Amino acid sequence: MTQTPIQREDFGNRLSNALFSGIAEQRVIAQKLYAQTKNLPIISPHGHVDPRFLAENKPFNNPAELFIFFDHYITRILHAAGFDLSEIGKGKTDLATAHSAWKILCDSWHLFTGTNSGYWLTHTLAHEFDIQVPLNEMSADESYRIIESKLNTPEMLPRALFAKFKISFLATTDDPIDDLRFHSALRNDSTFTGRVVPTFRPDKYIDSTNPHWSENVRALLSKTGKSLSYLNYISSFEELRKFFIQNGAISVDLGVREPFTHILTAEEAEEIFNVGISGTLTAEQARNFLGHMIVEMARMSCDDGLVITLHAGVFRNHSSSTLKEFGPDTGHDLPLQCEFVNNLRPLLEKYGHNKNLSLILFSLDEASWNRDVAPLATFYPTVFIGAPWWFLDAPDAAARFRSKTTDIAGFYRGSGFIDDTRAFLSIPARHDMSRRIDANYLAGLVVEGRISITEAERVAVDLVTTIPSKAFKL
Amino acid sequence: MTQTPIQREDFGNRLSNALFSGIAEQRVIAQKLYAQTKNLPIISPHGHVDPRFLAENKPFNNPAELFIFFDHYITRILHAAGFDLSEIGKGKTDLATAHSAWKILCDSWHLFTGTNSGYWLTHTLAHEFDIQVPLNEMSADESYRIIESKLNTPEMLPRALFAKFKISFLATTDDPIDDLRFHSALRNDSTFTGRVVPTFRPDKYIDSTNPHWSENVRALLSKTGKSLSYLNYISSFEELRKFFIQNGAISVDLGVREPFTHILTAEEAEEIFNVGISGTLTAEQARNFLGHMIVEMARMSCDDGLVITLHAGVFRNHSSSTLKEFGPDTGHDLPLQCEFVNNLRPLLEKYGHNKNLSLILFSLDEASWNRDVAPLATFYPTVFIGAPWWFLDAPDAAARFRSKTTDIAGFYRGSGFIDDTRAFLSIPARHDMSRRIDANYLAGLVVEGRISITEAERVAVDLVTTIPSKAFKL
Amino acid sequence: MTQTPIQREDFGNRLSNALFSGIAEQRVIAQKLYAQTKNLPIISPHGHVDPRFLAENKPFNNPAELFIFFDHYITRILHAAGFDLSEIGKGKTDLATAHSAWKILCDSWHLFTGTNSGYWLTHTLAHEFDIQVPLNEMSADESYRIIESKLNTPEMLPRALFAKFKISFLATTDDPIDDLRFHSALRNDSTFTGRVVPTFRPDKYIDSTNPHWSENVRALLSKTGKSLSYLNYISSFEELRKFFIQNGAISVDLGVREPFTHILTAEEAEEIFNVGISGTLTAEQARNFLGHMIVEMARMSCDDGLVITLHAGVFRNHSSSTLKEFGPDTGHDLPLQCEFVNNLRPLLEKYGHNKNLSLILFSLDEASWNRDVAPLATFYPTVFIGAPWWFLDAPDAAARFRSKTTDIAGFYRGSGFIDDTRAFLSIPARHDMSRRIDANYLAGLVVEGRISITEAERVAVDLVTTIPSKAFKL
Repeated sequence: MTQTPIQREDFGNRLSNALFSGIAEQRVIAQKLYAQTKNLPIISPHGHVDPRFLAENKPFNNPAELFIFFDHYITRILHAAGFDLSEIGKGKTDLATAHSAWKILCDSWHLFTGTNSGYWLTHTLAHEFDIQVPLNEMSADESYRIIESKLNTPEMLPRALFAKFKISFLATTDDPIDDLRFHSALRNDSTFTGRVVPTFRPDKYIDSTNPHWSENVRALLSKTGKSLSYLNYISSFEELRKFFIQNGAISVDLGVREPFTHILTAEEAEEIFNVGISGTLTAEQARNFLGHMIVEMARMSCDDGLVITLHAGVFRNHSSSTLKEFGPDTGHDLPLQCEFVNNLRPLLEKYGHNKNLSLILFSLDEASWNRDVAPLATFYPTVFIGAPWWFLDAPDAAARFRSKTTDIAGFYRGSGFIDDTRAFLSIPARHDMSRRIDANYLAGLVVEGRISITEAERVAVDLVTTIPSKAFKL
Repeated sequence: MTQTPIQREDFGNRLSNALFSGIAEQRVIAQKLYAQTKNLPIISPHGHVDPRFLAENKPFNNPAELFIFFDHYITRILHAAGFDLSEIGKGKTDLATAHSAWKILCDSWHLFTGTNSGYWLTHTLAHEFDIQVPLNEMSADESYRIIESKLNTPEMLPRALFAKFKISFLATTDDPIDDLRFHSALRNDSTFTGRVVPTFRPDKYIDSTNPHWSENVRALLSKTGKSLSYLNYISSFEELRKFFIQNGAISVDLGVREPFTHILTAEEAEEIFNVGISGTLTAEQARNFLGHMIVEMARMSCDDGLVITLHAGVFRNHSSSTLKEFGPDTGHDLPLQCEFVNNLRPLLEKYGHNKNLSLILFSLDEASWNRDVAPLATFYPTVFIGAPWWFLDAPDAAARFRSKTTDIAGFYRGSGFIDDTRAFLSIPARHDMSRRIDANYLAGLVVEGRISITEAERVAVDLVTTIPSKAFKL
Repeated sequence: MTQTPIQREDFGNRLSNALFSGIAEQRVIAQKLYAQTKNLPIISPHGHVDPRFLAENKPFNNPAELFIFFDHYITRILHAAGFDLSEIGKGKTDLATAHSAWKILCDSWHLFTGTNSGYWLTHTLAHEFDIQVPLNEMSADESYRIIESKLNTPEMLPRALFAKFKISFLATTDDPIDDLRFHSALRNDSTFTGRVVPTFRPDKYIDSTNPHWSENVRALLSKTGKSLSYLNYISSFEELRKFFIQNGAISVDLGVREPFTHILTAEEAEEIFNVGISGTLTAEQARNFLGHMIVEMARMSCDDGLVITLHAGVFRNHSSSTLKEFGPDTGHDLPLQCEFVNNLRPLLEKYGHNKNLSLILFSLDEASWNRDVAPLATFYPTVFIGAPWWFLDAPDAAARFRSKTTDIAGFYRGSGFIDDTRAFLSIPARHDMSRRIDANYLAGLVVEGRISITEAERVAVDLVTTIPSKAFKL
């Protein structure tokens, strides 16, 4: 039986001009601007890479573990197409599943046409594995073999990739009671010179609607060796943040359903805390307590200087049956409407002008970009505009983001690009995407006579250097 | 008195390149992609064409009846410009009104510059009537005469147009107690081979805020010959859905102010039903009952396989005086904010993973496209993204729809284009518009190196063949 | 020490093609359309220019007073960058502050890259002061000197600029109890032939949540010499509106947090009024009363014909500490979500079909443009679509505005461009921006075969002539 040959397209040319306008004049300028940023180091001040993986520096197991099993962008689309999550690596991640999951991905590759995942994976395979054919039924085995064989070469070890990717700064996301052993191992390892720091993420200790909140609080206090009380609870956060700072942390990450903030007196907070620990809070009490704790986190930041990244507007674990069977982070976290101007006012009334606070707002509700976030960030010196995130971290959305925020805020109130990924190998493709989109957007402004080429060049470089450094106080 | 000659513009060239980008490279690719879809049959799985009209196959009466009297897209703009609805065919549809309404339309044609109605009507007049001059004061009489004279030719009879338009599938929208006589007449007529099927639209029987709800429910039970009880009410729906399925129905259509879903026990539902039939429900009871009935419709679909199209976010009959004088569907139905992630959760917790359910979400709130609908549809295999609808079924909106949903969901979680029209003659112009917009969008992705031409070609064809077939289970 | 020479860029060419597409075909058409509107007179039916300034016709004091001190678009960005408002002219507007504020602006000019303020100021400096170098550290002193020296020339006097700008109509915004002395002085001055009219802005007299409401109401009644009662309160408005109309007023301006309207009986309104004057209203009473007063303003408009501009969705004075130190209008007014379809219904049920009412809706929530505003304006003859406003009055937002409203409403349901500015010198740059954006948008429609060049030409001219004249009943 003869096999249809794999169609080899003009990948090199296609990828090198990717995301640049078809307008000749704009494309030339975009290329020029991009040339000045493409090789600059990557600053990744917020993401979900596992530090263990750099500390241990072991090879990746197989293509599916690398690209499918832990990437909920990929698994959600396959799940929507009718594949059971167990077929694509949830619960069983053995080699047979790896091979068949890869085959499923290749057979279903048309589903990814035009998606952010499709774009990143195409670029990653081309640049890191020299795979310049489309994934499909015919290329499934060959691509699997190519990836698998490269995974065992020294240049594909995590630290080698870290150097190759020119990552100058990488923040992970960590549990406040984590002992940060992998971070200290990396710091104490003279053979590794990269800067990898932890991020303090207290959500499960401050959100009393978490079913394990009471246990979590006890674990927190046990970690600091304190007895159970509201004051000890607060001072435990202060103490653990210090420990994170000693380990290089620059930020606190908060992930909330709504960016609601609220002021409770110490007495009110203590009372709600005590009721919540032993019994059940009303929805209003729980909401007020979380709103209060976000303000407390800001108060601590005014003291210790940790930046706050506020990721707002996510309904986590929408499907109970999927949560029960496969756990969290399996593709059914969903965006919600998001309002910041009213919700953040209590916090901003207290700390909005504090010289030590940097509060970066990330929203999944595009309508809030130019209605809430950019306007807030162009008055309050403490507020910065978070880059497009999650469902919105893709070429068209990133272009709309620039269109919607630049008129109001220019470029200097932003966070810089944030990859926010646990998919280590996709980091260069993501940052490259952002640099291309920005080069192209700036080129458009030049073509339309709105800014000069000199201005465009400065902004292009600042966007990947001084701008993230300012927002994250690097 | 000499008359200014009617200006004849380069219509042919203008229309043949319509909706393609001015970027030469993109236009060439768009033309190529469009060439592959322009002659493919039209699948129209949801709309409002009256089946009687195909069953009887009589000529249209006059140009105004064809293009003005029943097209609330047209009448709303004329009404906003100050014309009384009675002047443009509401209430009196005689020949004199027809002629003067057509004259009003022509005199006011500049009001339609840039609108979807302007685009469709221009294309329809050019393609079906060979009218290649702009409508205006001077062309009013001539254009009326041209249309009028063609209306009485055999090639303008409804069935001839049905064949000419290459409609391979057409769904109408029908009352659950309709006897479907026109559908059965069409099916039993050996001279007509088109596939025309009914759609089950139960709104007025499940929404207890409808002023005639109690009567409607009685009529429903009378239709099935059952006594008045909640259980009979439920089983009547099951029975009538079966009758629709026997007559070819593939879907249930729900039109709601908000996509709120809710679970009531059978006892709770029964109690509310009984109170509602004889008296008045509170707003909360009515809301919960409707939310419950939407879930019931989904439950029945898990059994009988009918697709559900959920058209959400419309305030019907905003102007009481207009409703009173001219009835519903007279141009004052208006969009509302729309949230799906919270609202649909009760339904999706119960049936979101059911292999037999297909739930297509249509929203008039553009903000929900990439915040609610696309994210839901890329996890739940049951959820599909409805095409831009009503106020949003136009060139710019359709392009934004692709921009906002493709990054997240690709192309394969959509419903395919839905014309949703009662204006039979506009069907080809609408589908053609969609094919052009999609060809142009895909061409843009190719030009920007985001997808290959091979991928673009596959998607372009799938969008008008396999994609609607999957969502609507054809 | 040698100074780096100031870089002189190709400003002339850059600015003359500003905002036109890089697509050659589109640019040529845009230039052609723009050529037909660029020299047409400016109609400015809503704004905040101080009439005193034209009445007195004195020179501007200095560059900072002209461009910084009173422009909260500029000061908010500088404040967000960390400058104290007192450094940039709030509270102290002496010459030393003027000079250092100008230096701060120049040093920080990169912050304005891509912003609407950056665009306007660049154009204003180039066209009115012939400054064709970018602002920066090096050009700070020179640019200050150039502006300062021109400010004392006769051609830079306010009335000379009024003539040079070809302003055919200018509305200011005024307190209902203002004696309008500057307006009458202008009208009675035979050396000034411009048309400058007041606008009636009753917010502080109808919003009982204003901390000075009770005093304000007393002042209102004192102005008309009536005793304190609800009926006198109402008739005072009627009387003062007449006085404004005698002074040329064409409109009432309402600025509200939400466009909520509500019907109270005269008795209910009177009761709430009496309670509010002497004591404290509940939040619900205050909301209902304001909603009722908006309907009353509409009722009066049905009688006296004043157009209503409704500017909805602003949280005023978000930062209490800034308000306390620097007063209102200091850059911390922020947008809010905005819904019109439900909120306006009570008003529209009563007056939505009144031949004498023109109600122009301005929204800072882009999501409402095509969900609420355009749909309302294409049914109700009384409702018009307000131009993009405040945070949205910029090139990209204006282009999105056309994209989102034209499909639905065409061009003839709009207000025409509204500069809404207190920055007199920016008026030509703003109107020019709008004419360019519209020319370019129309050119795009022509290139895409959606409208003819004849249609585009008509619309381009109508947008700056008949369209604002109709909405504002000029």
